[in-house]
Amino acid sequence: MKISARNALKGTVKSITPGAVNAEVVIEVAPGLEVTSIITKASADNLGLVVGSEAYAVVKASNVMLAVE
Amino acid sequence: MKISARNALKGTVKSITPGAVNAEVVIEVAPGLEVTSIITKASADNLGLVVGSEAYAVVKASNVMLAVE
Amino acid sequence: MKISARNALKGTVKSITPGAVNAEVVIEVAPGLEVTSIITKASADNLGLVVGSEAYAVVKASNVMLAVE
Amino acid sequence: MKISARNALKGTVKSITPGAVNAEVVIEVAPGLEVTSIITKASADNLGLVVGSEAYAVVKASNVMLAVE
Amino acid sequence: MKISARNALKGTVKSITPGAVNAEVVIEVAPGLEVTSIITKASADNLGLVVGSEAYAVVKASNVMLAVE
Amino acid sequence: MKISARNALKGTVKSITPGAVNAEVVIEVAPGLEVTSIITKASADNLGLVVGSEAYAVVKASNVMLAVE
Repeated sequence: MKISARNALKGTVKSITPGAVNAEVVIEVAPGLEVTSIITKASADNLGLVVGSEAYAVVKASNVMLAVE
Repeated sequence: MKISARNALKGTVKSITPGAVNAEVVIEVAPGLEVTSIITKASADNLGLVVGSEAYAVVKASNVMLAVE
Repeated sequence: MKISARNALKGTVKSITPGAVNAEVVIEVAPGLEVTSIITKASADNLGLVVGSEAYAVVKASNVMLAVE
Repeated sequence: MKISARNALKGTVKSITPGAVNAEVVIEVAPGLEVTSIITKASADNLGLVVGSEAYAVVKASNVMLAVE
Repeated sequence: MKISARNALKGTVKSITPGAVNAEVVIEVAPGLEVTSIITKASADNLGLVVGSEAYAVVKASNVMLAVE
Repeated sequence: MKISARNALKGTVKSITPGAVNAEVVIEVAPGLEVTSIITKASADNLGLVVGSEAYAVVKASNVMLAVE
Protein backbone atom coordinates (compact mmCIF):
# COMPACT_ATOMS: atom_id res chain seq x y z
CA MET A 1 0.00 0.00 0.00
CA LYS A 2 1.30 3.45 -0.96
CA ILE A 3 0.05 6.18 1.35
CA SER A 4 -0.43 9.94 0.96
CA ALA A 5 1.35 10.70 4.23
CA ARG A 6 4.42 12.65 3.16
CA ASN A 7 6.60 11.40 5.97
CA ALA A 8 7.70 7.78 6.40
CA LEU A 9 10.91 7.55 8.40
CA LYS A 10 12.48 4.09 8.46
CA GLY A 11 13.90 2.90 11.75
CA THR A 12 14.21 0.26 14.43
CA VAL A 13 11.90 -0.34 17.39
CA LYS A 14 13.73 0.60 20.61
CA SER A 15 10.94 0.09 23.16
CA ILE A 16 7.26 -0.79 23.48
CA THR A 17 5.21 0.25 26.54
CA PRO A 18 1.72 -1.24 26.48
CA GLY A 19 -1.30 0.27 28.24
CA ALA A 20 -4.89 -0.97 28.36
CA VAL A 21 -5.88 0.55 25.00
CA ASN A 22 -2.77 2.23 23.62
CA ALA A 23 0.91 1.41 23.40
CA GLU A 24 3.87 3.77 23.28
CA VAL A 25 6.47 2.70 20.73
CA VAL A 26 9.86 4.38 20.27
CA ILE A 27 11.62 4.08 16.89
CA GLU A 28 15.21 5.12 16.19
CA VAL A 29 15.15 6.68 12.71
CA ALA A 30 18.77 7.80 12.55
CA PRO A 31 21.67 7.30 14.97
CA GLY A 32 20.53 8.97 18.20
CA LEU A 33 17.33 10.31 16.60
CA GLU A 34 14.20 8.79 18.12
CA VAL A 35 10.54 9.19 17.27
CA THR A 36 7.81 8.28 19.78
CA SER A 37 4.44 6.97 18.62
CA ILE A 38 1.19 6.20 20.40
CA ILE A 39 -0.85 3.59 18.54
CA THR A 40 -3.54 1.18 19.72
CA LYS A 41 -2.22 -1.94 21.39
CA ALA A 42 -4.18 -3.92 18.81
CA SER A 43 -2.23 -2.21 16.01
CA ALA A 44 1.11 -2.88 17.67
CA ASP A 45 0.13 -6.54 17.89
CA ASN A 46 -1.17 -6.64 14.30
CA LEU A 47 2.08 -5.26 12.97
CA GLY A 48 4.04 -7.84 14.97
CA LEU A 49 6.27 -5.16 16.47
CA VAL A 50 8.98 -6.25 18.89
CA VAL A 51 12.12 -4.49 20.08
CA GLY A 52 14.59 -4.63 17.20
CA SER A 53 11.93 -4.78 14.44
CA GLU A 54 12.27 -2.56 11.41
CA ALA A 55 9.40 -0.10 11.18
CA TYR A 56 8.45 3.22 9.61
CA ALA A 57 7.24 6.23 11.56
CA VAL A 58 4.50 7.68 9.34
CA VAL A 59 3.24 11.23 9.83
CA LYS A 60 0.79 13.28 7.77
CA ALA A 61 2.36 16.63 6.82
CA SER A 62 -0.52 18.57 8.39
CA ASN A 63 0.44 17.03 11.74
CA VAL A 64 3.99 18.37 11.67
CA MET A 65 4.49 21.69 13.42
CA LEU A 66 7.64 23.76 13.17
CA ALA A 67 9.51 25.54 15.92
CA VAL A 68 12.55 27.78 16.16
CA GLU A 69 14.74 28.61 19.13
CA MET B 1 8.60 27.24 26.02
CA LYS B 2 8.85 23.51 26.76
CA ILE B 3 6.18 21.48 25.01
CA SER B 4 4.55 18.10 25.68
CA ALA B 5 5.02 16.93 22.09
CA ARG B 6 7.40 14.00 22.37
CA ASN B 7 9.03 14.57 19.02
CA ALA B 8 11.13 17.61 18.14
CA LEU B 9 13.56 16.84 15.34
CA LYS B 10 16.13 19.55 14.69
CA GLY B 11 16.93 20.34 11.08
CA THR B 12 17.40 22.85 8.30
CA VAL B 13 14.73 24.34 6.05
CA LYS B 14 15.17 22.99 2.51
CA SER B 15 12.15 24.54 0.79
CA ILE B 16 9.05 26.64 1.43
CA THR B 17 6.04 26.52 -0.91
CA PRO B 18 3.42 29.10 0.01
CA GLY B 19 -0.30 28.78 -0.80
CA ALA B 20 -3.14 31.18 0.01
CA VAL B 21 -3.64 29.93 3.57
CA ASN B 22 -1.05 27.23 4.15
CA ALA B 23 2.60 26.74 3.32
CA GLU B 24 4.49 23.51 2.76
CA VAL B 25 7.88 23.49 4.44
CA VAL B 26 10.49 20.75 4.05
CA ILE B 27 13.08 20.27 6.80
CA GLU B 28 16.16 18.03 6.56
CA VAL B 29 16.51 16.43 10.03
CA ALA B 30 19.44 14.13 9.25
CA PRO B 31 21.56 13.72 6.11
CA GLY B 32 19.10 12.71 3.39
CA LEU B 33 16.19 12.47 5.87
CA GLU B 34 13.48 15.03 5.17
CA VAL B 35 10.27 15.85 7.00
CA THR B 36 7.46 17.75 5.28
CA SER B 37 5.17 20.07 7.22
CA ILE B 38 2.04 22.00 6.36
CA ILE B 39 1.59 25.04 8.56
CA THR B 40 -0.33 28.28 8.05
CA LYS B 41 1.47 30.83 5.95
CA ALA B 42 1.09 33.24 8.86
CA SER B 43 3.02 30.83 11.10
CA ALA B 44 5.79 30.39 8.57
CA ASP B 45 6.10 34.18 8.44
CA ASN B 46 5.94 34.56 12.23
CA LEU B 47 8.76 32.07 12.70
CA GLY B 48 10.86 33.93 10.13
CA LEU B 49 11.54 30.74 8.21
CA VAL B 50 13.70 30.96 5.10
CA VAL B 51 15.61 28.30 3.19
CA GLY B 52 18.64 27.44 5.29
CA SER B 53 17.05 28.36 8.66
CA GLU B 54 17.40 26.01 11.61
CA ALA B 55 14.05 24.67 12.70
CA TYR B 56 12.49 21.81 14.63
CA ALA B 57 9.84 19.47 13.22
CA VAL B 58 7.50 18.95 16.18
CA VAL B 59 5.01 16.06 16.22
CA LYS B 60 2.68 14.88 18.96
CA ALA B 61 3.20 11.15 19.61
CA SER B 62 -0.47 10.38 18.97
CA ASN B 63 -0.01 11.67 15.41
CA VAL B 64 2.75 9.20 14.58
CA MET B 65 1.60 5.98 12.93
CA LEU B 66 3.80 2.97 12.41
CA ALA B 67 4.13 0.78 9.35
CA VAL B 68 6.05 -2.34 8.41
CA GLU B 69 6.94 -3.72 5.01
CA MET C 1 3.42 -1.40 3.50
CA LYS C 2 1.16 -2.39 6.40
CA ILE C 3 0.18 0.56 8.57
CA SER C 4 -0.94 0.91 12.18
CA ALA C 5 -3.91 3.12 11.25
CA ARG C 6 -6.93 1.07 12.24
CA ASN C 7 -9.15 2.45 9.52
CA ALA C 8 -8.61 1.87 5.81
CA LEU C 9 -11.85 2.22 3.88
CA LYS C 10 -11.63 1.12 0.26
CA GLY C 11 -13.43 3.27 -2.29
CA THR C 12 -13.46 5.14 -5.56
CA VAL C 13 -12.30 8.71 -6.19
CA LYS C 14 -15.34 10.89 -6.96
CA SER C 15 -13.69 14.31 -7.21
CA ILE C 16 -10.38 16.11 -6.82
CA THR C 17 -10.21 19.86 -6.12
CA PRO C 18 -6.64 21.17 -6.20
CA GLY C 19 -5.43 24.25 -4.34
CA ALA C 20 -1.95 25.80 -4.24
CA VAL C 21 -0.64 23.45 -1.54
CA ASN C 22 -3.46 21.06 -0.70
CA ALA C 23 -6.07 19.14 -2.64
CA GLU C 24 -9.51 18.03 -1.53
CA VAL C 25 -10.32 14.48 -2.61
CA VAL C 26 -13.70 12.80 -2.17
CA ILE C 27 -13.86 8.98 -2.01
CA GLU C 28 -17.04 6.90 -2.13
CA VAL C 29 -16.46 4.03 0.32
CA ALA C 30 -19.91 2.43 0.10
CA PRO C 31 -22.93 3.25 -2.08
CA GLY C 32 -23.85 6.84 -1.16
CA LEU C 33 -21.22 7.00 1.61
CA GLU C 34 -18.49 9.53 0.89
CA VAL C 35 -15.36 10.45 2.78
CA THR C 36 -13.57 13.76 2.15
CA SER C 37 -9.81 14.05 2.51
CA ILE C 38 -7.39 16.97 2.42
CA ILE C 39 -3.90 15.89 1.37
CA THR C 40 -1.03 17.80 -0.17
CA LYS C 41 -1.31 18.31 -3.90
CA ALA C 42 2.09 16.63 -4.21
CA SER C 43 0.68 13.50 -2.52
CA ALA C 44 -2.36 13.41 -4.77
CA ASP C 45 0.00 13.58 -7.75
CA ASN C 46 2.37 10.95 -6.30
CA LEU C 47 -0.48 8.52 -5.80
CA GLY C 48 -1.64 9.09 -9.39
CA LEU C 49 -5.19 9.78 -8.24
CA VAL C 50 -7.79 10.58 -10.87
CA VAL C 51 -11.58 10.47 -10.77
CA GLY C 52 -12.56 6.80 -10.88
CA SER C 53 -9.33 5.53 -9.24
CA GLU C 54 -9.53 2.97 -6.47
CA ALA C 55 -8.17 4.35 -3.22
CA TYR C 56 -8.32 3.82 0.52
CA ALA C 57 -9.33 6.47 3.03
CA VAL C 58 -6.93 5.87 5.93
CA VAL C 59 -7.64 7.33 9.38
CA LYS C 60 -5.80 6.85 12.67
CA ALA C 61 -8.26 5.74 15.38
CA SER C 62 -7.28 8.65 17.62
CA ASN C 63 -8.55 11.02 14.92
CA VAL C 64 -12.06 9.56 14.88
CA MET C 65 -14.56 11.33 17.14
CA LEU C 66 -17.98 9.98 17.93
CA ALA C 67 -21.28 11.82 18.05
CA VAL C 68 -24.87 10.98 18.90
CA GLU C 69 -28.07 12.77 17.98
CA MET D 1 -24.77 21.40 16.81
CA LYS D 2 -23.59 21.50 13.20
CA ILE D 3 -19.87 20.84 12.86
CA SER D 4 -17.27 21.72 10.23
CA ALA D 5 -15.89 18.17 10.11
CA ARG D 6 -16.65 16.99 6.59
CA ASN D 7 -17.10 13.37 7.55
CA ALA D 8 -19.89 12.05 9.77
CA LEU D 9 -20.58 8.38 9.10
CA LYS D 10 -23.68 7.02 10.81
CA GLY D 11 -23.44 3.58 12.31
CA THR D 12 -23.96 1.22 15.22
CA VAL D 13 -21.63 0.60 18.14
CA LYS D 14 -20.17 -2.91 17.86
CA SER D 15 -17.76 -2.91 20.82
CA ILE D 16 -16.35 -0.70 23.56
CA THR D 17 -12.99 -1.48 25.21
CA PRO D 18 -12.29 0.84 28.14
CA GLY D 19 -8.80 1.72 29.40
CA ALA D 20 -7.76 3.99 32.26
CA VAL D 21 -8.04 7.22 30.25
CA ASN D 22 -9.20 6.25 26.79
CA ALA D 23 -11.72 3.84 25.33
CA GLU D 24 -11.65 2.09 21.97
CA VAL D 25 -15.05 2.09 20.27
CA VAL D 26 -15.85 0.23 17.04
CA ILE D 27 -18.74 1.47 14.88
CA GLU D 28 -20.20 -0.39 11.89
CA VAL D 29 -20.98 2.31 9.31
CA ALA D 30 -22.13 0.05 6.48
CA PRO D 31 -22.60 -3.74 6.32
CA GLY D 32 -19.17 -5.19 7.09
CA LEU D 33 -17.52 -1.75 7.16
CA GLU D 34 -16.18 -0.85 10.58
CA VAL D 35 -14.52 2.29 11.89
CA THR D 36 -12.43 2.26 15.08
CA SER D 37 -12.25 5.30 17.34
CA ILE D 38 -10.20 6.17 20.40
CA ILE D 39 -11.94 8.73 22.59
CA THR D 40 -11.60 9.53 26.27
CA LYS D 41 -13.50 7.19 28.58
CA ALA D 42 -15.26 10.26 29.96
CA SER D 43 -16.56 11.10 26.46
CA ALA D 44 -17.79 7.55 25.88
CA ASP D 45 -19.68 7.80 29.17
CA ASN D 46 -21.02 11.29 28.42
CA LEU D 47 -22.41 10.15 25.09
CA GLY D 48 -24.10 7.16 26.79
CA LEU D 49 -22.58 4.76 24.28
CA VAL D 50 -23.39 1.05 24.67
CA VAL D 51 -23.12 -1.82 22.22
CA GLY D 52 -25.97 -1.41 19.77
CA SER D 53 -26.22 2.40 20.12
CA GLU D 54 -26.52 4.55 17.03
CA ALA D 55 -23.52 6.84 16.67
CA TYR D 56 -21.64 8.86 14.09
CA ALA D 57 -17.94 8.49 13.37
CA VAL D 58 -16.78 12.09 12.82
CA VAL D 59 -13.46 12.84 11.11
CA LYS D 60 -11.95 16.17 10.04
CA ALA D 61 -10.97 16.01 6.36
CA SER D 62 -7.37 16.98 7.15
CA ASN D 63 -7.09 13.78 9.20
CA VAL D 64 -7.98 11.50 6.30
CA MET D 65 -5.03 10.14 4.36
CA LEU D 66 -5.33 8.32 1.07
CA ALA D 67 -3.58 5.17 -0.07
CA VAL D 68 -3.45 3.09 -3.22
CA GLU D 69 -2.38 -0.51 -3.73
CA MET E 1 -25.56 16.40 17.53
CA LYS E 2 -23.54 15.77 20.70
CA ILE E 3 -19.88 15.07 20.00
CA SER E 4 -17.13 13.23 21.88
CA ALA E 5 -14.65 16.09 21.45
CA ARG E 6 -14.00 17.28 24.99
CA ASN E 7 -13.41 20.89 24.01
CA ALA E 8 -16.07 23.18 22.55
CA LEU E 9 -15.26 26.83 23.21
CA LYS E 10 -18.05 29.25 22.34
CA GLY E 11 -17.05 32.47 20.64
CA THR E 12 -17.51 35.01 17.88
CA VAL E 13 -15.98 34.94 14.39
CA LYS E 14 -13.39 37.72 14.09
CA SER E 15 -12.01 37.03 10.61
CA ILE E 16 -12.25 34.61 7.69
CA THR E 17 -9.39 34.25 5.18
CA PRO E 18 -10.34 31.98 2.28
CA GLY E 19 -7.84 30.01 0.20
CA ALA E 20 -8.48 27.66 -2.76
CA VAL E 21 -9.29 24.62 -0.58
CA ASN E 22 -9.06 25.78 3.03
CA ALA E 23 -10.10 28.84 4.99
CA GLU E 24 -8.55 30.30 8.11
CA VAL E 25 -11.14 31.38 10.65
CA VAL E 26 -10.36 33.25 13.88
CA ILE E 27 -12.80 32.97 16.81
CA GLU E 28 -12.69 35.09 19.98
CA VAL E 29 -13.61 32.68 22.81
CA ALA E 30 -13.10 35.08 25.72
CA PRO E 31 -12.18 38.79 25.80
CA GLY E 32 -8.81 39.00 24.07
CA LEU E 33 -8.52 35.21 23.74
CA GLU E 34 -8.54 34.06 20.13
CA VAL E 35 -8.49 30.61 18.59
CA THR E 36 -7.44 30.08 14.96
CA SER E 37 -8.94 27.28 12.88
CA ILE E 38 -8.21 25.90 9.43
CA ILE E 39 -11.26 24.21 7.92
CA THR E 40 -12.22 23.52 4.33
CA LYS E 41 -13.73 26.47 2.53
CA ALA E 42 -16.74 24.25 1.80
CA SER E 43 -17.27 23.76 5.55
CA ALA E 44 -17.01 27.46 6.26
CA ASP E 45 -19.67 28.04 3.61
CA ASN E 46 -21.88 25.18 4.88
CA LEU E 47 -21.84 26.58 8.39
CA GLY E 48 -22.78 30.03 7.07
CA LEU E 49 -19.92 31.64 8.94
CA VAL E 50 -19.48 35.41 8.61
CA VAL E 51 -17.60 37.91 10.75
CA GLY E 52 -19.66 38.38 13.90
CA SER E 53 -21.28 34.90 13.82
CA GLU E 54 -21.44 32.84 16.98
CA ALA E 55 -19.44 29.65 16.64
CA TYR E 56 -17.74 26.98 18.71
CA ALA E 57 -14.09 26.02 18.40
CA VAL E 58 -14.12 22.24 18.79
CA VAL E 59 -10.93 20.31 19.55
CA LYS E 60 -10.41 16.63 20.34
CA ALA E 61 -8.48 16.26 23.63
CA SER E 62 -5.79 14.15 21.94
CA ASN E 63 -4.98 17.17 19.73
CA VAL E 64 -4.24 19.47 22.65
CA MET E 65 -0.58 19.66 23.67
CA LEU E 66 0.65 21.32 26.82
CA ALA E 67 3.62 23.62 27.29
CA VAL E 68 5.30 25.37 30.18
CA GLU E 69 7.61 28.35 30.21
CA MET F 1 11.21 27.58 21.63
CA LYS F 2 8.72 29.40 19.40
CA ILE F 3 6.25 27.06 17.73
CA SER F 4 4.13 27.29 14.57
CA ALA F 5 0.96 26.17 16.37
CA ARG F 6 -1.33 29.17 16.14
CA ASN F 7 -3.06 28.52 19.43
CA ALA F 8 -1.36 28.71 22.83
CA LEU F 9 -3.87 29.42 25.59
CA LYS F 10 -2.34 30.19 28.96
CA GLY F 11 -3.99 28.67 32.00
CA THR F 12 -3.78 26.74 35.24
CA VAL F 13 -3.80 22.97 35.70
CA LYS F 14 -7.07 21.92 37.37
CA SER F 15 -6.69 18.13 37.33
CA ILE F 16 -4.42 15.33 36.14
CA THR F 17 -5.75 11.78 35.61
CA PRO F 18 -2.95 9.34 34.79
CA GLY F 19 -3.42 6.11 32.83
CA ALA F 20 -0.83 3.49 31.85
CA VAL F 21 0.42 5.38 28.79
CA ASN F 22 -1.53 8.62 28.63
CA ALA F 23 -2.70 11.22 31.11
CA GLU F 24 -5.73 13.49 30.92
CA VAL F 25 -4.95 17.04 31.99
CA VAL F 26 -7.54 19.81 32.40
CA ILE F 27 -6.41 23.45 32.10
CA GLU F 28 -8.53 26.49 32.98
CA VAL F 29 -7.70 29.09 30.31
CA ALA F 30 -10.18 31.77 31.38
CA PRO F 31 -12.60 31.93 34.33
CA GLY F 32 -14.89 28.93 33.88
CA LEU F 33 -13.35 28.01 30.51
CA GLU F 34 -11.57 24.66 30.60
CA VAL F 35 -9.56 22.80 27.98
CA THR F 36 -8.93 19.06 28.26
CA SER F 37 -5.73 17.51 26.91
CA ILE F 38 -4.52 13.95 26.49
CA ILE F 39 -0.74 13.72 26.50
CA THR F 40 1.63 10.88 27.31
CA LYS F 41 2.20 10.32 31.01
CA ALA F 42 5.91 10.72 30.30
CA SER F 43 5.27 14.22 28.90
CA ALA F 44 3.17 15.23 31.89
CA ASP F 45 6.04 14.12 34.12
CA ASN F 46 8.69 15.84 31.96
CA LEU F 47 6.83 19.14 32.12
CA GLY F 48 6.54 18.83 35.91
CA LEU F 49 2.80 19.45 35.80
CA VAL F 50 0.89 19.45 39.08
CA VAL F 51 -2.52 20.84 40.00
CA GLY F 52 -2.12 24.61 40.18
CA SER F 53 0.79 24.80 37.67
CA GLU F 54 0.75 27.41 34.94
CA ALA F 55 0.61 25.80 31.52
CA TYR F 56 -0.34 26.53 27.94
CA ALA F 57 -2.83 24.51 25.92
CA VAL F 58 -1.27 24.38 22.45
CA VAL F 59 -3.33 23.41 19.39
CA LYS F 60 -2.40 23.39 15.71
CA ALA F 61 -4.97 25.39 13.73
CA SER F 62 -5.69 22.44 11.43
CA ASN F 63 -6.91 20.52 14.50
CA VAL F 64 -9.56 23.08 15.39
CA MET F 65 -13.01 22.40 14.00
CA LEU F 66 -15.86 24.87 14.08
CA ALA F 67 -19.50 24.27 14.95
CA VAL F 68 -22.65 26.33 15.03
CA GLU F 69 -25.90 25.73 16.88
